[in-house]
Amino acid sequence: MSVACGRLDDVRKIHVIGIGAGDPDQLTLQAVRALRSTDVFFVLDKGEVKSDLTQLRRDMLDAHIPQGSYRVVEARDPERDRAAGGTAYSPAVGDWRSARAAIYQRLIAEELGDEESGAFLVWGDPALYDSTLGILEEILERGEVAFEYDVVPGISSVSALVARHRTGLNRVAGSVQITTGRRLAESFPEGVDDVVVMLDAHQAFRRYVDQDIDIYWGAYIGTPDEILASGPIAEAGPRIERLRAEARERKGWIMDTYLLRRNPDRR
Amino acid sequence: MSVACGRLDDVRKIHVIGIGAGDPDQLTLQAVRALRSTDVFFVLDKGEVKSDLTQLRRDMLDAHIPQGSYRVVEARDPERDRAAGGTAYSPAVGDWRSARAAIYQRLIAEELGDEESGAFLVWGDPALYDSTLGILEEILERGEVAFEYDVVPGISSVSALVARHRTGLNRVAGSVQITTGRRLAESFPEGVDDVVVMLDAHQAFRRYVDQDIDIYWGAYIGTPDEILASGPIAEAGPRIERLRAEARERKGWIMDTYLLRRNPDRR
Repeated sequence: MSVACGRLDDVRKIHVIGIGAGDPDQLTLQAVRALRSTDVFFVLDKGEVKSDLTQLRRDMLDAHIPQGSYRVVEARDPERDRAAGGTAYSPAVGDWRSARAAIYQRLIAEELGDEESGAFLVWGDPALYDSTLGILEEILERGEVAFEYDVVPGISSVSALVARHRTGLNRVAGSVQITTGRRLAESFPEGVDDVVVMLDAHQAFRRYVDQDIDIYWGAYIGTPDEILASGPIAEAGPRIERLRAEARERKGWIMDTYLLRRNPDRR
Repeated sequence: MSVACGRLDDVRKIHVIGIGAGDPDQLTLQAVRALRSTDVFFVLDKGEVKSDLTQLRRDMLDAHIPQGSYRVVEARDPERDRAAGGTAYSPAVGDWRSARAAIYQRLIAEELGDEESGAFLVWGDPALYDSTLGILEEILERGEVAFEYDVVPGISSVSALVARHRTGLNRVAGSVQITTGRRLAESFPEGVDDVVVMLDAHQAFRRYVDQDIDIYWGAYIGTPDEILASGPIAEAGPRIERLRAEARERKGWIMDTYLLRRNPDRR
């Protein structure tokens, strides 16, 4: 891992802060401390549909930092080529990430003073399906702007989901896999019976409704709009499809996650 | 999932609180709130070797709750039959869990008043390799004592590990599996190149030192004793074995976790 080193006393500092899955109380004390030591927050605008999230984030800042003690710098997120499917997925993501790296680099170079601290706020945990860390490494590799950064872990939507369902991720001495809807649509992961699915826009669980699987599903977890549903997938699956479609229609966007728990004895 | 229902106004309440991986600042605001609303903390003593952890937990309570506003009830943890290996693992765990359930049930019945709140504090996240939720369900199924419970998710050692290494759990659009040292010793999980290993007393990674794998390892993560090491497993593996043996000798116990990242292109 590369660390850009300048003189220690004048190098820019960046926090990548996991802010939890949606419940403002799921901020850690470490995250609150990092928010308070930040001069400039970088916010990439993903368009209007998720303005609830933008407001929620703004409320978090208001709750923990005196106004006037920080700046918010906004930029437009690059368009992502969502048409590229199948095996082209990773390269399309790569292009998009490089476009985003160029924007981040400009923000850091132009908006962050030599002795200031900047922060990127990440929903959930920066370690799961988030591009911020990869983008910062890409910028450091380019070598055109120097900074140090640290990572504040957050409560992921995975953790928040199973806490609300009051169940564990793994069973006794077992394994759990965290994967994407795209991968689940291809096949059920091998060698594991507990699978958490993220980034699933197409309800890949539908392929498995005839199997002996329990599903634990949640949307907008930790927010006032939270919806939970669980049960044997044959019964709960169609119910979740309806709930999901209604919620998406009502709010204009949805963020959901689920755990599939296959019964190995009755497979 | 079963919920024991009594009259809502006089049913005992229990919080299962994830208190993070070792850094007291990794408590969430929700966890602090739950600590403050707790009358009785149940602590199972695992013997003297981990007294550092007992002290750390006591310091957390002192930092967030006025003394005299809560009680701590301690009990001795049942002995676990660690001699039972191989396929006997799960049954031995089952016996141990039932023994523990009997102790928890007695604590709840005898020590928690009708309108009081009790709490079990869990290192990391109660969703990962922790028995508390399963034990509470087992007690409710027995039907001899009624209570409601909720779960406060915590920063797991998995999250804390990768945050300290400033890397993600998954790679772009990829999957990650969380498994045990015992399972890794049998084989490398199929269909996945990013694997987090917990509960590994025997350094199962040694089996893979001739493969193109990077390891990200950490012990006592988030505490003043934290040790981190990473690199290609051929080089970092033996170094980690030494660090681990020295630390274990010095402190008398060790808690460590690691991520294995296999390079699929060079496999």
